[in-house]
Amino acid sequence: MTARPTSRILTELEKAVGTAKLSTDAAVLAEYSRDLGPTDAAALPLAVVFAESVEDVQATVRTCSATGTRIVPRGAGTGLSGGAHAVENSIVLSLERMNRILEIRPDDEVAVVEPGVINADLNTAAAEHGLMYAPDPASHSFSTIGGNIGTNAGGLRCAKYGVTRDSVLGLDVVLADGTLIRTGRSTFKGVAGYDLTGLLVGSEGTLGIVVRATVRLRYLPVDVRTIAAFYPDFASAAAGVLAVGRARVQPAIMELMDAGSLADADRLNGSDLLARGNALLLIQTDGFGAEREAEVVRRVLAGTGAALHAEDPEEAERLVFLRRNSRGIGRDSEFRVGEDVAVPRSRLVDYVRELERMAEDHRVAVKVVAHAGDGNLHPEFWVDSKAPDIREAMARLDRALDESIDVALAMGGTITGEHGIGSFKLRWLPLEHSERLRELEHGVKAVFDPQGILNPGKAV
Amino acid sequence: MTARPTSRILTELEKAVGTAKLSTDAAVLAEYSRDLGPTDAAALPLAVVFAESVEDVQATVRTCSATGTRIVPRGAGTGLSGGAHAVENSIVLSLERMNRILEIRPDDEVAVVEPGVINADLNTAAAEHGLMYAPDPASHSFSTIGGNIGTNAGGLRCAKYGVTRDSVLGLDVVLADGTLIRTGRSTFKGVAGYDLTGLLVGSEGTLGIVVRATVRLRYLPVDVRTIAAFYPDFASAAAGVLAVGRARVQPAIMELMDAGSLADADRLNGSDLLARGNALLLIQTDGFGAEREAEVVRRVLAGTGAALHAEDPEEAERLVFLRRNSRGIGRDSEFRVGEDVAVPRSRLVDYVRELERMAEDHRVAVKVVAHAGDGNLHPEFWVDSKAPDIREAMARLDRALDESIDVALAMGGTITGEHGIGSFKLRWLPLEHSERLRELEHGVKAVFDPQGILNPGKAV
Repeated sequence: MTARPTSRILTELEKAVGTAKLSTDAAVLAEYSRDLGPTDAAALPLAVVFAESVEDVQATVRTCSATGTRIVPRGAGTGLSGGAHAVENSIVLSLERMNRILEIRPDDEVAVVEPGVINADLNTAAAEHGLMYAPDPASHSFSTIGGNIGTNAGGLRCAKYGVTRDSVLGLDVVLADGTLIRTGRSTFKGVAGYDLTGLLVGSEGTLGIVVRATVRLRYLPVDVRTIAAFYPDFASAAAGVLAVGRARVQPAIMELMDAGSLADADRLNGSDLLARGNALLLIQTDGFGAEREAEVVRRVLAGTGAALHAEDPEEAERLVFLRRNSRGIGRDSEFRVGEDVAVPRSRLVDYVRELERMAEDHRVAVKVVAHAGDGNLHPEFWVDSKAPDIREAMARLDRALDESIDVALAMGGTITGEHGIGSFKLRWLPLEHSERLRELEHGVKAVFDPQGILNPGKAV
Repeated sequence: MTARPTSRILTELEKAVGTAKLSTDAAVLAEYSRDLGPTDAAALPLAVVFAESVEDVQATVRTCSATGTRIVPRGAGTGLSGGAHAVENSIVLSLERMNRILEIRPDDEVAVVEPGVINADLNTAAAEHGLMYAPDPASHSFSTIGGNIGTNAGGLRCAKYGVTRDSVLGLDVVLADGTLIRTGRSTFKGVAGYDLTGLLVGSEGTLGIVVRATVRLRYLPVDVRTIAAFYPDFASAAAGVLAVGRARVQPAIMELMDAGSLADADRLNGSDLLARGNALLLIQTDGFGAEREAEVVRRVLAGTGAALHAEDPEEAERLVFLRRNSRGIGRDSEFRVGEDVAVPRSRLVDYVRELERMAEDHRVAVKVVAHAGDGNLHPEFWVDSKAPDIREAMARLDRALDESIDVALAMGGTITGEHGIGSFKLRWLPLEHSERLRELEHGVKAVFDPQGILNPGKAV
């Protein structure tokens, strides 16, 4: 800590957690003022608390509650919706130092973790027992379980293995007044009382601070098969998704990349994907039936105009890696905004066609990747940040974003499949949730956080 | 309707929905006064409303809200916890006539149903498209989707396919003031705002009346293999469950039956299960890997002292049928109470050993079946209803029940895996949920139902 805290809240926090866990250093404040979401909403916090224990979290929350100070909880800060953007006069509460895997119980197929555990680290530890933690956001090697819980993170394996909520059995949570509660259970099933665990998952830190999670582990597949199907165009590749579905095969991974995404992946990684086709449908089957499923997938896709490659395990792993790293190329000369809509699967082709039309109408660039297995698309729109009239360019970008949301909703979709509302998507929430529904959400918020100090202006 | 309604509420209800949808017939009132849960809490309702549309539900709820009349929503009345038991001066709102499957969208793998649809009927309709609705409570041939949603029903296939909550994407719900809201989405994934859909699932009709559900369908397995492993005792059979888990094979069904359950099944169905062993571990693998998985299961179980039978499909179906129908033999000479605890899987053997000790200590009879794949046990305790001192016998039964709950909780378990709290298990809820947790639950209840008219005295 370089600067001496002057205001009352900082003095109190110093008393509560000690100087080693508190920072008001300007560089730290700047670094912790935002996540990877669009920039517009972030402010500098008053301080960052680096909690190392449940007691640290309780002490911080009690101090903030007593002074009415707002708290922005934070995992690794890798969110894409501004859910961890700081607000004026707030404290950022980092959980990254609470990173212990407390228990792995192989026979119960359960793990107990602190919120700061990196998703991939839990998977490494579970793998020693033939187990895995199924939810695998593309950020799995640097995002935390706590952050994943905050947004109910999805990932590549969701269509088969479910999202974060489906793997969280119970939570220890520090409430807005500093009370520690335990929700849920340690068993796979349980229906006692209301499902507050499920309510907390995806609530983006607005209802309480998760300090411990009991999660279900699944079996590491004994076999994995990868099929890379390259197509001349995106619409044919999306038709391949429906064909696999009609064959009633449930892949573990079913990802779509369009030409723009293939080009970005090539540029970022030195690969040659675009030379193989203008769209890629990347499918993995897993488990005891992986080989038989892969046979059916190949047979079905052969009828949809795909150029098929049965990838060897090394090349397969590389393709999945390229897919995971196809986002966020972020060049200085461009202003990019990523989206996260989901549509019913049968509308994938229609939606992508609409995206291309919008891009043309508003003169913006677009590329798209999709977790096609569950209809979740990540279009990315961008404009040249050196455009002569940047305000006009940004206005076009905004109109394209708005339209992409409207069209997704009109097709029976949602404005966010897995990234959360954060602060960035709040403007669109009333288009999806009715006024009465939002009243209920705010009512629930008030039950958990009557002062409104937990991550204000996020999620609802 | 045979009797003319005299009080104001009945007149108002008659105006709201018409006489054809309203009954005050004494036999009807008696029949609709309770579900299949223990009897102690039921009272006669003032009337039964048989809603046929969303508008009927809204009109009924508005009428009750205006007069402060309590509403007990009801599906098929097959619940086992008294969640549909009527209370004094209440209206029972039956959803059984709202039994239309509104949509099956095979490419989206989604169905939209009214709450009164019988679980098995949805499965029959989905099967035409190679699809299934996964949650399959033992009551699937006569319980409704709405009732299943109310209790977040489990079933036999949960360990692999999840519980009801995992298949419900969105709900249309009539709130306590008659407002119709839509929660959730039509897509597999979606994280906009709080997960009110998940909150409503399992809330036993205390937060709103579900009038329509959008559910995810899964793929009908291409192959199913059944293994019946008979053991000399229950502990060995439970050890078989852990052995299969350690082999990292995920069966679709993994059921345990003890000698008492096998005897009951034999008596009820004329089968000869008990002649084959004192405990049965019944396993089904399914999907493209079914055969390979079954091979591993057989190899693993052979090392645990099992007498193995690879059942032909017809015999396999019969065994699963016998399991589904092993509950509720209900003879007049006995007073029986079924339980629904769940424990971490590694504690199955310990827990059953404890059950046997309790039965001996309290001189009651016990049998047990278990959804072993997720540690969910259904012990059933009973005493002779013709006992010379029935009050003393019932007191022993009660003590055994209480102890079975205490021991399950001490092992890290839950008091209800899938049947719900209803009215019957309310007395044990404070043992599992802390006072603060219950305050939050009551706070949520007050947000949704400030008058407290929806299924009072249930769930929380």
